[in-house]
Amino acid sequence: MRAVRVHEYEQKPVLEEVPDPVVTGPLDVLVEIDAAGVCRTDLHIVEGQWQDKSGVQLPYVIGHENAGTVREVGPAVSGTAPGDRVILHPLVTCGLCLACRSGDDVHCENSTFPGINTDGGMAELMLTNARSVVRLDEGLEPADVAALADAGLTAYHAVRKAVPLLPAGTHVVLIGAGGLGHIGLQSLLAMTPAEITVIDRSQRALDLAAELGAHHTVLADRSQVDSALDITGGRGAHVVLDFVGEGGTESEGVAMTRDAGSYFVIGYGGHVDIPTIDVISREINVIGNLVGSYTDLVELMALTAQGKVSLRTRRYSLDEALDALADLDAGRIPGGRAILVP
Amino acid sequence: MRAVRVHEYEQKPVLEEVPDPVVTGPLDVLVEIDAAGVCRTDLHIVEGQWQDKSGVQLPYVIGHENAGTVREVGPAVSGTAPGDRVILHPLVTCGLCLACRSGDDVHCENSTFPGINTDGGMAELMLTNARSVVRLDEGLEPADVAALADAGLTAYHAVRKAVPLLPAGTHVVLIGAGGLGHIGLQSLLAMTPAEITVIDRSQRALDLAAELGAHHTVLADRSQVDSALDITGGRGAHVVLDFVGEGGTESEGVAMTRDAGSYFVIGYGGHVDIPTIDVISREINVIGNLVGSYTDLVELMALTAQGKVSLRTRRYSLDEALDALADLDAGRIPGGRAILVP
Amino acid sequence: MRAVRVHEYEQKPVLEEVPDPVVTGPLDVLVEIDAAGVCRTDLHIVEGQWQDKSGVQLPYVIGHENAGTVREVGPAVSGTAPGDRVILHPLVTCGLCLACRSGDDVHCENSTFPGINTDGGMAELMLTNARSVVRLDEGLEPADVAALADAGLTAYHAVRKAVPLLPAGTHVVLIGAGGLGHIGLQSLLAMTPAEITVIDRSQRALDLAAELGAHHTVLADRSQVDSALDITGGRGAHVVLDFVGEGGTESEGVAMTRDAGSYFVIGYGGHVDIPTIDVISREINVIGNLVGSYTDLVELMALTAQGKVSLRTRRYSLDEALDALADLDAGRIPGGRAILVP
Amino acid sequence: MRAVRVHEYEQKPVLEEVPDPVVTGPLDVLVEIDAAGVCRTDLHIVEGQWQDKSGVQLPYVIGHENAGTVREVGPAVSGTAPGDRVILHPLVTCGLCLACRSGDDVHCENSTFPGINTDGGMAELMLTNARSVVRLDEGLEPADVAALADAGLTAYHAVRKAVPLLPAGTHVVLIGAGGLGHIGLQSLLAMTPAEITVIDRSQRALDLAAELGAHHTVLADRSQVDSALDITGGRGAHVVLDFVGEGGTESEGVAMTRDAGSYFVIGYGGHVDIPTIDVISREINVIGNLVGSYTDLVELMALTAQGKVSLRTRRYSLDEALDALADLDAGRIPGGRAILVP
Repeated sequence: MRAVRVHEYEQKPVLEEVPDPVVTGPLDVLVEIDAAGVCRTDLHIVEGQWQDKSGVQLPYVIGHENAGTVREVGPAVSGTAPGDRVILHPLVTCGLCLACRSGDDVHCENSTFPGINTDGGMAELMLTNARSVVRLDEGLEPADVAALADAGLTAYHAVRKAVPLLPAGTHVVLIGAGGLGHIGLQSLLAMTPAEITVIDRSQRALDLAAELGAHHTVLADRSQVDSALDITGGRGAHVVLDFVGEGGTESEGVAMTRDAGSYFVIGYGGHVDIPTIDVISREINVIGNLVGSYTDLVELMALTAQGKVSLRTRRYSLDEALDALADLDAGRIPGGRAILVP
Repeated sequence: MRAVRVHEYEQKPVLEEVPDPVVTGPLDVLVEIDAAGVCRTDLHIVEGQWQDKSGVQLPYVIGHENAGTVREVGPAVSGTAPGDRVILHPLVTCGLCLACRSGDDVHCENSTFPGINTDGGMAELMLTNARSVVRLDEGLEPADVAALADAGLTAYHAVRKAVPLLPAGTHVVLIGAGGLGHIGLQSLLAMTPAEITVIDRSQRALDLAAELGAHHTVLADRSQVDSALDITGGRGAHVVLDFVGEGGTESEGVAMTRDAGSYFVIGYGGHVDIPTIDVISREINVIGNLVGSYTDLVELMALTAQGKVSLRTRRYSLDEALDALADLDAGRIPGGRAILVP
Repeated sequence: MRAVRVHEYEQKPVLEEVPDPVVTGPLDVLVEIDAAGVCRTDLHIVEGQWQDKSGVQLPYVIGHENAGTVREVGPAVSGTAPGDRVILHPLVTCGLCLACRSGDDVHCENSTFPGINTDGGMAELMLTNARSVVRLDEGLEPADVAALADAGLTAYHAVRKAVPLLPAGTHVVLIGAGGLGHIGLQSLLAMTPAEITVIDRSQRALDLAAELGAHHTVLADRSQVDSALDITGGRGAHVVLDFVGEGGTESEGVAMTRDAGSYFVIGYGGHVDIPTIDVISREINVIGNLVGSYTDLVELMALTAQGKVSLRTRRYSLDEALDALADLDAGRIPGGRAILVP
Repeated sequence: MRAVRVHEYEQKPVLEEVPDPVVTGPLDVLVEIDAAGVCRTDLHIVEGQWQDKSGVQLPYVIGHENAGTVREVGPAVSGTAPGDRVILHPLVTCGLCLACRSGDDVHCENSTFPGINTDGGMAELMLTNARSVVRLDEGLEPADVAALADAGLTAYHAVRKAVPLLPAGTHVVLIGAGGLGHIGLQSLLAMTPAEITVIDRSQRALDLAAELGAHHTVLADRSQVDSALDITGGRGAHVVLDFVGEGGTESEGVAMTRDAGSYFVIGYGGHVDIPTIDVISREINVIGNLVGSYTDLVELMALTAQGKVSLRTRRYSLDEALDALADLDAGRIPGGRAILVP
C-alpha cells in the first residue's frame, strides 16, 4: 500500500509503497483509511519534538486522526464487521487493566498510539483493534469527522468535564478559538446554557465564534482580562477553558477565574504558576485535560450526527500529503483542517 | 468584659476591660465564650501580616476559634436559644446571596470574620449571628472542640472533598502531620478505606500518626518522593493532601500525584508551578481548599461526638492569654493546641 | 386592597376588599403583585382537596405563582429593595435549619406556602420574605414569568436532576406535554443533547412539542410503550420523565425505562407498583420530584432571559379572577396559562 | 474432572466425572477451583425456579461464587498468568459493548453467567475469561473470599452507591442482617461515619450486628417502623438498605425513609407500591441494586485484605457437595456460608 512515512527527523516524510499491515491478533481490526487528519502535531513529529517521548523506530507511518471502512477483523471481534464505516479512537487500549475496566481507557497501562508511537493512518490501510472502533451514523462522512478523532475529542472531553459546573446563569470563558476551541465552543452550546465569552487574537476567529453563537467575543489585545472581568460582573468566570496554555494565557486564565471556580488547561507550552495562598484563599482549581475516552468519542459522534458539531475541512488526496503538510506549515489552511482522502 | 485586644501591630496585645457587645440585629446571637483557640494566625495578626488583607480598625479583639454558651438572641433567631452550648462557624454570613443560598456560605458576598476583621472571641462575650451557631452534642465540651472551628474545619473540608476519589484500593498521601494534618488523618480514617501515607519532618508527629492508624509513615528527609512512589507501586497517590504548601512540598506533592490524580492545596506560603504540558499529559488536578461550610462544621461535630476526631489541648485561663500566645510563639505547645477558658 | 379569598370550600372564591398586609418581621418583603398565575391547584383548593393537608384557616387569599414589584422591606433585608421587579419562590423558608443551610430549602423544616397555607398572591399585595425574592432581568415581564414560579419550577427541577444522566447519544421520554411538560421539554432542549421523545394524548400538544424541537412524538393511543421501545432500539430510555403520574403512565413509564435507567415521577394521582425482582434485576430507579429550590428558580430565570423557555399566557385583570378560574375549569385556556394582572 | 451437575429439575444434582473444559478463545482463562460458595440460589436452580430465566441446557454444572488458581490462559490474555490465585467476577462480559466500555460491565449486552446459564464452579475446573479474574492479595485465601464473589459483591455495590448520601450526622437503616446484610454492615462501617440501625427478626443476627459495630439494633416484632423513626428523630433515615425486599419490608422500608431520602432495594420477592403523590410530595427515591461491577469486586477485595470485611464459612469437600446443599436447605448452616473445597 501507499503510506506517508518519516524516515529521518527534520527531513520531509516520504510517500512510498510499504507492505500491507495484516490481522494477527484476535481483536485486530484492519481499516481502509478514507480520511486522515493532518495536524500540527505531525509537523512537530517531523521536527523531532516527539522523538524522545514516543521512542518510535523510524521509518514509520504518521497520521493519528483516522476514519475509514473496516476491511478485516480478528476472530474475537464483535460489534463491528467488514464494511462498517468507522472513526478510530486515537489510542489502542488493552481492556484489561483497572483503568480500562473503569471506563477510563485513556489511562490504560498498556496502550499504543498509532501515528505517534506505531504506524498510523496516512496510508491506504491501518491496523488497530476492536476497542478503538466507533461505527459512524449513516449521515456521517469519514472525511467530515476524521479530525474529531483526536483534536476534537480533546476539546469535547474538557467541555464534558466542565458541564456540571455550568448551569444557567454561570459564565464560561474560552481562550483560543482555533481548531480545538471551535469544537469546544460548539460542544458548550450543545450541552450548557452558560454565558460564553470567547477570547482570541484573531478578529476573524472571533467573528466565526460569534456566528456560531458565542455570547461575547473579546480581542486579546492586552485588555482581555479586564474585559472578561467586566462581562462577568467583576468576579470572573465559573470555568475558564484555556485552549492555548502558553504565552501568558496561563496567568490570564487564572485571573479570569471566579473564586471557587476552575481553570481548565487544554493547550500547553507554558507554565501554571500560582501562589499557594491564592489557590487556597480563592479556593480555585486547576484541571488537566487529555484526549477523551472511547465513550466520549461515541458521544461526540452523536453530537456530530445531530449537526451540533462540525468542522471546516479542505481535502487533499493521499498523493498530495506532502502538499497538505506544507500548506499547514505555511499557514495556508486558516480556520480549517486538512484531510487526506484516497 | 475582659478581652484581648490588639492596639498596635508588632506590640503585645492587651488584656483589658471593654464594653460588652450588645444584640442589635434581628439575627444577632451573643455568646459567652467558654473556649477560644489560640492559633498561629493570631501571632501573624499581631505581627501585622494581616493588616492589609483584613483592613480591621485597631484596637480590636482577636480570637477566631470559638465555642461557648448562648446568652441572648435577636428577635428573628430560631434554632438556638439562651443556654445552648455551641461552637461558632468562623464566618458570619448573610444567608441571602446566591453562594449562601446554594449552601456554599464560605463564599458569601457579605461575610465578616470575627477575630480577623471584627471583634473575635478572646473575651468573655462575642457577638455573632444565628447562621454561625452549631449546637453541641451533650457529650462535647467547648474546650475540647473550639480549635476545630477553623483549623479543624479546614482539614475536614479538604478531606470531605477528597473522599469520593478514595474508594478501597486507592492511595492518599498526607503531607504535614501537625494540627491540621492530625484532623485530616482522623477524618480520612473515619470516612475512607484508602491506604494512607503520612509524611512529616518530625518523627514524633509520625509516631502519633501511626498510632492513630496511618498505614505508612515517611520521614521527610529528601527521599520522601521516592518513598511515596515506592509505597504506591511507582505510580503515585490518587490524592495528595498538602497541609504545608511551601518549602518544596508544592513540587514534591505534584510529583507524588498519580496520573489522573489530584493534588489538594491546604497549607500555603509557596507556589504551585507546573508546566502546562505536565498538567495535560498527566491529566492532573490542583484543588484549592478554604475553610469548611456550616454543614461541614455540623458534620465534623458529628464525627467528634462519635469519638472519631479529637484534639490534644492545653488550657489557659483568659487571664493567661498572653502566656498562651508566648508559649505558642516559642514552640512550647508541641502536638497540641492552646485553648483559653474563662 | 382587593384580594381573591376562599371563604368556604366548594363555594366560589370572593373578590373583596381586605386590609393591606404589613411588614413586621426583619426579613419581610411586601410585594405589589403584577402577575399571579391561575393554576389547577387553585381549583382543587376551592373543591376542598387541600383542606386537610394545608390546615389553612378560612377565609384566606389564594394564588401561589406570583411576580411583582417590591414595595417595602424589613430592616434585615439585603439584596433587594423597593422598586425591584421580582418573581417569588413559592415557599417562604427559614434559612436556619440544616436543609436550608445545605441549599435544599424546599425541605426547610419551618416553611410556609403562600396561597396554600397562608395568604397568597391573587391580590394587590402579598407579604413574603427576602429568601423568596428573585430579581428579574430587565428583559423579563412579571406577567410572562409568573407561572414559572411553581409549575415551571417543578418541571425545571426534575430536568435539572436528570441532565447528568443524559449525555449525547442517550434517550429521554417525556410523558405529558401539558403546561409542565412544555417547560420540561424546553429545559431539556436548553441543557442536554439527548434524543427526546414526547408522548401525549393530544395531537395538538404533540404538534407544539415537535415545533419546539422534540425529536419524536408519539400519540398515547395504547401503542405508546411499543413506539417508545422502537424509537429507543428496543431497550427503553435512559430517563423517563412522567408529568402525568396516573391513569397507567406509572407502569408504562417503568416499561419504557432502560435497564439501569431512571423513571422520574413528577405528576401524581396514581401508584408506582413494581415487583422488587424487577427493580433489582433491571437495576432501575424511581426518582421523586418536588418543586425546585431557590437556586433552581434563579437558573430558570436565566434560561428564560435567554429566551430558551417561554410560556403561552392569557391575561385577565384581577377583577376578572373568577372568570379566569371558570375558564380554566371549563377547559377554555388550552395550551396556555391564565395570568391575573392588576 | 469431577463436577456437580443438574440433570433434571426437582431432582438432586449429581457429582460425576465430566470432560475437562478447554481453553479455545483468545481471552479464555481456565481456573482450578479452590473454593465454590453454596448459595440459596443453587437450591432455587434445582427447584427449577430459574429454568425459564436462564434457559440453560441440562445437564450443566452449578456454582456461581468461585475462587481458585489459574491453570491456563488464552493467547490474548494479559494481567493474569498460570499460578495466580484469583476470585472470579460472576459475569463473563464482552468488553466491547458500550456498557462494558463505560465501566458498567454488569449491564454488558453479551454476558454469560457461569453456574446460572453455563457451566459453573462446583467442579475441579471452570472456564471463564480474562475480564472476570481478580488477583488475590497474598493474605487472602480462596475459601475465605469465594462467597464474596456474588452475594458479598451485591451488598458492597449497594453500599458503595449509598456512601455519597451518608456523611457524618446522617442515618442509615439496614433491613435484614443475614449473609448479604452482614457484608453490607461491614462495608458501611468501613466507608461511612453514618449512624447505623440494623433491623432483623433474629436476635442472634442482631447480636452479631451489634458486635460488628452497628449503633442500634431493632428486633422486627411489628414495632420496627416506630423504633426506626424514634432513633432517627421522628424523620426516618437518609438511606434505607432493604436486604429482604418481601413480606412487608417494602412498605416498612419506605415508611422509614426520610423526605428527600432513598430506599435501596437489594432483596426481592415482594412489590414496591407507593402512591405517586407520596413519591413526589416526599421527594423520595427507590434505587435498584444488582451485583457489583468488576471494579467493585476489586475494591471489595481491597477491603477484605484490610480485614474490614469477613465471612463466617463452613468448608465441605467437593465430594460432600450434596451434603452442603442439604445442610443449607435444612437450615443447618446458621450465620455462615458453605464453601466447597477440593
